[in-house]
Amino acid sequence: MARIGNSVCMSDWGRAPTVVVEDAFIVEPWCVREPRLRVDELSTAESIFTLANGGLGIRGCLDEGEPVGTSGTYLNGVHELRSLVYPETGSGDPEATETLVNTINGTLIRVLVDGQPLDVRQGELLQHERLLDFRRGTLRRRLRWRCPGGREVEVISERVVSLDQRMTAAVRYRVQALDQPVEIVLQSSLAANEQLPRLPAVPDPEELLAHPLEGLEHQAAGARLTLLHRTATTGLIVGATAEHVIDSSADVEEHVESQPDHARYSASVRLEPGGHLTVVKLLGYAWSGDRDLPAVRDELAGALTVARRRGWDGLLAAQRVFLDNFWDSADVELDGDPELQQAVRFALFQLLQATVRADGRGIAGKALTGTGYEGHVFWDTETFVLQVMTAVAPSVVRHALRWRHSTLPKARERARQFDLQGAAFPWRTITGAECSGYWPAGSAAFHVNADIADAVVRYVDATEDEEFASSYGLELLAETARLWLSLGHWGRDERFHIFGVTGPDEYSALGDDNVYTNLMAQRNLHAAAHWAEQLPADAARLEITEGERAQWRAAADAMFVPYDEGLGVHPQAAGYLDQPRWDFAAMAEDSYPLHSHFPYFQLYRKQVVKQADLVLALFLRGDAFDDEQKARDFAYYEEITVRDSSLSAPCQAIIAAEVGHLDLAHEYIVESALADMRDEEHDSSNGMHIAALAGTWLALVAGFGGLRQTDGGLSFRPTLPAALSRLRFRLLFRGRLLRVTVEPGTATYELLRGAPISIRHERETVEVSGEQAVSRPLSPRPRRPVPIQPETRAPGRGTPLDEATPAAPGHSVAEPVGPRLASYDDR
Amino acid sequence: MARIGNSVCMSDWGRAPTVVVEDAFIVEPWCVREPRLRVDELSTAESIFTLANGGLGIRGCLDEGEPVGTSGTYLNGVHELRSLVYPETGSGDPEATETLVNTINGTLIRVLVDGQPLDVRQGELLQHERLLDFRRGTLRRRLRWRCPGGREVEVISERVVSLDQRMTAAVRYRVQALDQPVEIVLQSSLAANEQLPRLPAVPDPEELLAHPLEGLEHQAAGARLTLLHRTATTGLIVGATAEHVIDSSADVEEHVESQPDHARYSASVRLEPGGHLTVVKLLGYAWSGDRDLPAVRDELAGALTVARRRGWDGLLAAQRVFLDNFWDSADVELDGDPELQQAVRFALFQLLQATVRADGRGIAGKALTGTGYEGHVFWDTETFVLQVMTAVAPSVVRHALRWRHSTLPKARERARQFDLQGAAFPWRTITGAECSGYWPAGSAAFHVNADIADAVVRYVDATEDEEFASSYGLELLAETARLWLSLGHWGRDERFHIFGVTGPDEYSALGDDNVYTNLMAQRNLHAAAHWAEQLPADAARLEITEGERAQWRAAADAMFVPYDEGLGVHPQAAGYLDQPRWDFAAMAEDSYPLHSHFPYFQLYRKQVVKQADLVLALFLRGDAFDDEQKARDFAYYEEITVRDSSLSAPCQAIIAAEVGHLDLAHEYIVESALADMRDEEHDSSNGMHIAALAGTWLALVAGFGGLRQTDGGLSFRPTLPAALSRLRFRLLFRGRLLRVTVEPGTATYELLRGAPISIRHERETVEVSGEQAVSRPLSPRPRRPVPIQPETRAPGRGTPLDEATPAAPGHSVAEPVGPRLASYDDR
Repeated sequence: MARIGNSVCMSDWGRAPTVVVEDAFIVEPWCVREPRLRVDELSTAESIFTLANGGLGIRGCLDEGEPVGTSGTYLNGVHELRSLVYPETGSGDPEATETLVNTINGTLIRVLVDGQPLDVRQGELLQHERLLDFRRGTLRRRLRWRCPGGREVEVISERVVSLDQRMTAAVRYRVQALDQPVEIVLQSSLAANEQLPRLPAVPDPEELLAHPLEGLEHQAAGARLTLLHRTATTGLIVGATAEHVIDSSADVEEHVESQPDHARYSASVRLEPGGHLTVVKLLGYAWSGDRDLPAVRDELAGALTVARRRGWDGLLAAQRVFLDNFWDSADVELDGDPELQQAVRFALFQLLQATVRADGRGIAGKALTGTGYEGHVFWDTETFVLQVMTAVAPSVVRHALRWRHSTLPKARERARQFDLQGAAFPWRTITGAECSGYWPAGSAAFHVNADIADAVVRYVDATEDEEFASSYGLELLAETARLWLSLGHWGRDERFHIFGVTGPDEYSALGDDNVYTNLMAQRNLHAAAHWAEQLPADAARLEITEGERAQWRAAADAMFVPYDEGLGVHPQAAGYLDQPRWDFAAMAEDSYPLHSHFPYFQLYRKQVVKQADLVLALFLRGDAFDDEQKARDFAYYEEITVRDSSLSAPCQAIIAAEVGHLDLAHEYIVESALADMRDEEHDSSNGMHIAALAGTWLALVAGFGGLRQTDGGLSFRPTLPAALSRLRFRLLFRGRLLRVTVEPGTATYELLRGAPISIRHERETVEVSGEQAVSRPLSPRPRRPVPIQPETRAPGRGTPLDEATPAAPGHSVAEPVGPRLASYDDR
Repeated sequence: MARIGNSVCMSDWGRAPTVVVEDAFIVEPWCVREPRLRVDELSTAESIFTLANGGLGIRGCLDEGEPVGTSGTYLNGVHELRSLVYPETGSGDPEATETLVNTINGTLIRVLVDGQPLDVRQGELLQHERLLDFRRGTLRRRLRWRCPGGREVEVISERVVSLDQRMTAAVRYRVQALDQPVEIVLQSSLAANEQLPRLPAVPDPEELLAHPLEGLEHQAAGARLTLLHRTATTGLIVGATAEHVIDSSADVEEHVESQPDHARYSASVRLEPGGHLTVVKLLGYAWSGDRDLPAVRDELAGALTVARRRGWDGLLAAQRVFLDNFWDSADVELDGDPELQQAVRFALFQLLQATVRADGRGIAGKALTGTGYEGHVFWDTETFVLQVMTAVAPSVVRHALRWRHSTLPKARERARQFDLQGAAFPWRTITGAECSGYWPAGSAAFHVNADIADAVVRYVDATEDEEFASSYGLELLAETARLWLSLGHWGRDERFHIFGVTGPDEYSALGDDNVYTNLMAQRNLHAAAHWAEQLPADAARLEITEGERAQWRAAADAMFVPYDEGLGVHPQAAGYLDQPRWDFAAMAEDSYPLHSHFPYFQLYRKQVVKQADLVLALFLRGDAFDDEQKARDFAYYEEITVRDSSLSAPCQAIIAAEVGHLDLAHEYIVESALADMRDEEHDSSNGMHIAALAGTWLALVAGFGGLRQTDGGLSFRPTLPAALSRLRFRLLFRGRLLRVTVEPGTATYELLRGAPISIRHERETVEVSGEQAVSRPLSPRPRRPVPIQPETRAPGRGTPLDEATPAAPGHSVAEPVGPRLASYDDR
């Protein structure tokens, strides 16, 4: 037992829940606790219980492998190609899409109890509890099971994916005999090419996706297993290796064996009552698209070596230190809404897991929590995820933008396909190649280029990372600026126009002078000109001439922004306000999401907004609008926005807060924050909505905190809705760690680390130093009529999962037979 | 020999060609003659030499079956379903497309000469000539062949598809021994599920399309063969039957046999020098989607019975009578351009073949000449084909519009899918169901509804067929009017607008207030209101209220037509003239067609026109523009129109003629008229462009003839380009047969049949009676600068096929060894 030892502090795990709700998940401040197993909802829980680090992601499937929703062990970048077939092809249509594939399952540990497989659907599941711990950084599980023969065992398992070691993970699995002796066989495996279910919203998987990996090598020796495979069409080498450390109250017989797709370690033991068998399974992964098999084999061994050196306790301790550091600069505290408190910490935890070791790879819309959107990266990574991370963990932003930079060759090639200059970044991608098969909603959404540029400007401004600006930032700004100059044109009115592009709202397409796009392109052009001036040597290297800078400035200065004088409202794009309004009155609640029931033909030609577009411009380009315009624009678009995208509510929350609709803002934040845990969009089963989770932080910090990062630094216009009595958040900016506390009527600014700094509070410049906190009163927001939403589309807290999907009798198992466990440890 | 006898007058066949051109086809006024076989261009010749009647179409493949480009025997309506797969699906996307399938080849007659198959690629082909005769209505062929053993035979064959008997065809095949005796075996077959090549522009055929027919019955008895099959997914029963009548100078041994996909009649004979074997193969076809097998079997026998009763000579005689009648009301005579003379008669012959017995089925874009566009019907049937047929053979228009009427249930269902009222006719279809898999260029082109309405108005006006108006016309007008009312909306400017639809030009999509669409919808709405008033009982039956009529009138009266005061030009759609212009200077000749080299993204957002759109409005709604507007609009759009569609040149020709650019008009007419024979679009191999062929007539008659059918009747503003010394055309109108002769400076109007009638010549009303011809002088057209086209896009006569595609040595066969045959008959 010496080599396993006791785990670190278990205080959270042991503490009684703050609020006990008869719900799928219990509301607690620092964890997600699932009090019983819902066999019909396994996929959603697997997504929520994913452990990941941006490089490696393991869905929260049961250790025993079955029952399972969707098994998933993802290595960021390991993908296959799937042909795209078009009914009618057009020039420039991508011929294939990249798709994230499940690699090698390393967490599989099956148990036979007296010869009977431990399966929660068989025998009697007396208790089942899971807990995802935001500070411990692990997924724990305890179950008590009576096998059909009548004997009972308890299983306690814990799983960790290292947040600092990119390719390292581990499982500790302990089975204990309760009142009677039992024969236990434990089988720990590595498994490739697992059979997967057809997921909703994922296209028909072709044969290759059902069997994406070709076996290269398999080994089983001592207590160690190794599988090495190659992806079928992309030729990536992928490996997994596992080392087992056993501990038991009795004598154990061990055995290993392997086949191309399956390697197995078995331990057999007879346990007396109270006796246990515990295995620590240390896991290493590796993959490469350009290194050869010996190199990947060595990398694999290296990943395992780290795990072996640290051991189980060392892995957990390192995880805890890592998370303590993270929360130190990232935590958000809330008084008044325990659900929201849990949700914002869950969001930050998932964001960390999505990004921290993504290193040179993209951060996908569902990160590594599932294969939704086929594992593609979209624009909202830059606009939502990186905006948060710039404030709480800026080093990951550097990596994420370096990844975009690494895809510049493909973006340039795409621009050439469109007969455009500079770089056209893809709408959806894994490697940087465009994977969108419906261009009006995909490739035509060129704003992705400005969103990347915006993230560059924000990151460089917040970190003063001039080395990044010089080596990567300027090139990204210049190549995107070149795109705008060739995409737009000078009109007869001597203004600069951008025609025929799609903005963020997916219920419109191919508009002229989309306000969001034009304003973001304007910022892009200005920033490119500015940084080219700041970094003359780099500008020369990138062949940016003075004449080109002048063209960028001229186009930015003359950028056309349509405005309807009659209505006093900005159209989403030119002519938008002349379109007929969607017949909202004719919609029933189940008419939503509209794109599932109505063709794009109708959606595109009417005033109906899927997701904040103009309202997102009000946030990101708030400097281009005055307060009254914002209020009018917001009110107008509220009436036609249906929020069929998870990206919308956070933006609506931010502007609702800014223009003074505080309770409405709170409702939007809550709806958005709880969406994944409530599976509001019915697709959390294939992964979390990472950008929407980022939206939870943004809505609180930019919404109620009123944070804006402007040319002049940080500015705050805090406020609080009636439901919240306190909001406290931390953020990093230019080497400082700031803490902001918003209470009714007051905001307090504290500098926890770094040199004194000026910030803006409302219209006042405030110096904040480490000596003492500075408090300022909050001006009341002007009172305005509260805007209304289309019928049935007012925001809400949603329906708890249990009520939304009543389990069929016999399918929901594991209602505790005894009293609910208030706490438990892993003795 | 008595039962075969000599054929009717062969004067055309025997007459020396008017113009001998060293070209693929010889220019003659009443036929297409192919002087030698081009083995590399078989498919195009097969399309050109198709015989059809609108119900049955047989491509002009060689009798022996091989070599072959694409075998094709089509029964109008016999189709299969092919799944449509989308990279990203949208609500309302069709799940399957209908696709025309090859049925049962009945013309197959193979010959063994001394045991060697007669194959033009083997032995020596001493001579090969084919002739499609517009007055005789047959395809004839003569070849002289030296078999590898050295003996020579002559083959003369002739094929007919009855123009009055929908499912009847026949072949006469005669083989003659020349200087030495030969053993002849003649094998005449019915063949189902022939292997087909992959055609360009036709999507990957699925398994079912490679083998679309399941055998039901096969019979061979006496000299008769029968095959009955069923289509795999659509379950249509399809049958073919053949009866053989033999004649020979020697004793013949006959034999028949059959299998599910193949039935064969064999005749074996030894011919002395000069001896012959002649077989007449009478063919009957039948198919049904709702009648049972015995019913189809009887129908099949019926089709053959007609052929048997008439016999070969009777079939040919009936064909000649039919065609004499047709040319009596349809012929167009031209002096000054022999190629164009041939082309317009070829066009009229193909139009007749496409339509005359289509009966209750649609008329496809390639009719029954090939599987291009999968055999789909498009809007241009109504706008181009039916416009011609209204003037020369109005009864087929009645049938074609009744077919549209029969598809109303599907069009209503499609409108419901779009949440619209009335009927939304499909962009492309065989049965009436939408088959377009790319909606921005397909289903969004709602103008198809107005084009159908326009054809109804034109037909009823030209025929005074009130029974049709009452039973079918009003319902078509009302349901399409209802569509417009729900598709458009009343704007803040109190005008009626139609947003987000695609006009005829396929290089634009989803425009607002497309001028063509709005003007055609306006006519549609007015006509619906007018006819509802004229036919109150029918209006009541169709639940057209006075209120609805008033709404139609109000929307029509308030229809918005955008106009750019600054440029004095109509934009194709709102905002069109603000788009940047396509960079034509950067295009090379091989950059066209642009859609093969540039993505729709760029095409849609720039000023570049694939095909007449605003210019088509200038023609069809000429009443909505004054002469100066027409001239300015035409000049403007000439500069940006690239004619990547075969539908464009005829429209440009018509308006060029109207505004006075007569030589330009002539060039457009010629380019369009010769396009199929020259295979200008490189896809005549999969069928003729039927609408473009109609455009040849339209360009001559509406262009130089200046014919317009207006509310007030017929009006003419004739003119002639320098190259033509005379244009004479005939047309039917309200029971009259008129003949119009245009000569330099003069137009002459003659009434050949019917009561006196008023027409308009220029601004004058002219009475035309049967007593004498009326001549009127022609006002000169105002002189205007000749507009220019984008570089390399000026119209031209094109390149003769021989020069365009030089044959590889050894692949082109059958240069005559002796003197060219000036004529031959079929002894």
